[in-house]
Amino acid sequence: MELISENRSFGGAQKVFKHASAVCGCDMTFAVYLPPQAKTGPVPVLWYLSGLTCNHENAMTKAGMQEHASEAGIAVVFPDTSPRGEDVANDEAYDLGQGAGFYVNATCDPWRPHFQMYDYIATELRAALMDNLPLRDAHGITGHSMGGHGAITIALRNPGLFASLSAFAPIANPTQSDWGRKQLSAYLGDDESAWVEYDSTLLLESLGWKSDLLVDQGADDQFLDLLKPEALADMMARCRQPGQFRMQAGYDHSYFFVNSFAGDHVRWHAQRLHQDQNNRL
Amino acid sequence: MELISENRSFGGAQKVFKHASAVCGCDMTFAVYLPPQAKTGPVPVLWYLSGLTCNHENAMTKAGMQEHASEAGIAVVFPDTSPRGEDVANDEAYDLGQGAGFYVNATCDPWRPHFQMYDYIATELRAALMDNLPLRDAHGITGHSMGGHGAITIALRNPGLFASLSAFAPIANPTQSDWGRKQLSAYLGDDESAWVEYDSTLLLESLGWKSDLLVDQGADDQFLDLLKPEALADMMARCRQPGQFRMQAGYDHSYFFVNSFAGDHVRWHAQRLHQDQNNRL
Repeated sequence: MELISENRSFGGAQKVFKHASAVCGCDMTFAVYLPPQAKTGPVPVLWYLSGLTCNHENAMTKAGMQEHASEAGIAVVFPDTSPRGEDVANDEAYDLGQGAGFYVNATCDPWRPHFQMYDYIATELRAALMDNLPLRDAHGITGHSMGGHGAITIALRNPGLFASLSAFAPIANPTQSDWGRKQLSAYLGDDESAWVEYDSTLLLESLGWKSDLLVDQGADDQFLDLLKPEALADMMARCRQPGQFRMQAGYDHSYFFVNSFAGDHVRWHAQRLHQDQNNRL
Repeated sequence: MELISENRSFGGAQKVFKHASAVCGCDMTFAVYLPPQAKTGPVPVLWYLSGLTCNHENAMTKAGMQEHASEAGIAVVFPDTSPRGEDVANDEAYDLGQGAGFYVNATCDPWRPHFQMYDYIATELRAALMDNLPLRDAHGITGHSMGGHGAITIALRNPGLFASLSAFAPIANPTQSDWGRKQLSAYLGDDESAWVEYDSTLLLESLGWKSDLLVDQGADDQFLDLLKPEALADMMARCRQPGQFRMQAGYDHSYFFVNSFAGDHVRWHAQRLHQDQNNRL
């Protein structure tokens, strides 16, 4: 892991690293905020997965997670949203290829050689973080839009890896949305039975989630038709899923929305991650 | 005033406006955060002046002022840092011309026709805000780097306009710095006697400041040689200026620094602006 930049932030350190990813077959960049508490011992970590067009930097500079993470004593990791580079397949559209990995393991060319974001997040980056940074084995995961989709699908399929889960305006039902059908078809092929592994609403029905779940959604989100929050809210209710689906009046899809509820989510995760630790002691 | 965008943020509204500036002879863009309290009555307003290369957007998205302004019940205005447009003089250097107005009234060509940022901030934009938005006549002012220079110089020369004053890593002594001599020479000419009106350290000596003053400076700022914080700190001490000059260990010049102390500054101003109102009642 090569340190690219480091800035003091709320008494802690906002760092950016680059490392060679074997899973994605390219160099990957990610950011980690370490709170002041990490100077004296390992801290829990919250994963923040970003949305379409974003890289590691957008939420790092705009979501305002650091202030709350510093108070709560947890780290936050901001991965990139796809493999990158001249040798990596791409598409002219903003919603396919680089910047739009959809957190899947692609099985179709030209995407298959590099677009393995599911394994990158669930396995490779996790191991790199744990080996190199003062982190406790207490992980929460959240994300925004495509990243909310990633957070829910990865957590539901790997309940042993994450103790807490939330999402901001997730792409909730991609098998039924133009934010999903296009990408799942390209990355996974036309056999829709392979798509269900990457649909939060369908996975909630089949697998459930072991703990409570927090979802925030702006009522004035300009992408409601693509996000399909009603599918997830309905499934949460039908499955009697513990947790909260909060429809936030007046909010849109921007980072102003994420920023406004970042404190709630950081505290939600911190409470559960610290509690998880206390239960083990 | 034309509304360009509006996003819900912490229960309030982050708005961006464009208006025709007679003073600058071009359209000017600015951002205003209105806290939820502005829905039921006028609120005090904090001016945030930005630094070199910035426009109205940088601090709006990166400084994290909205959360604290929402709690404190004050508005925040983010002006642009210079006139803009194809008809407006410019320079290839990042630190002269568009994005680098230095908050002066230029007297030399080619800058004189548009570069009147001092009057724009102190007079024209102020009037436009008061005429069109639910703001009380209770103003505080702060800024970062070149904007910290603007905040201190404008407030010291107009103590009747501002009730509270602070700065983040201001260009503190531009008459003695390469961040200053080049620009003051270009905008005002080679007669250095005209420059003293735009030097915070010299103005503090000649005019003083009526109230207390808060200055934060990163000890690991990469531009210490250009900012010259020691000149201002020394002058504050020599003048027995009430207030605080805080040297913050480990912090650099970035928005991570501004963000880390944004809450302190917003609360500093809010306390004084609300107190100012109470004293008048």
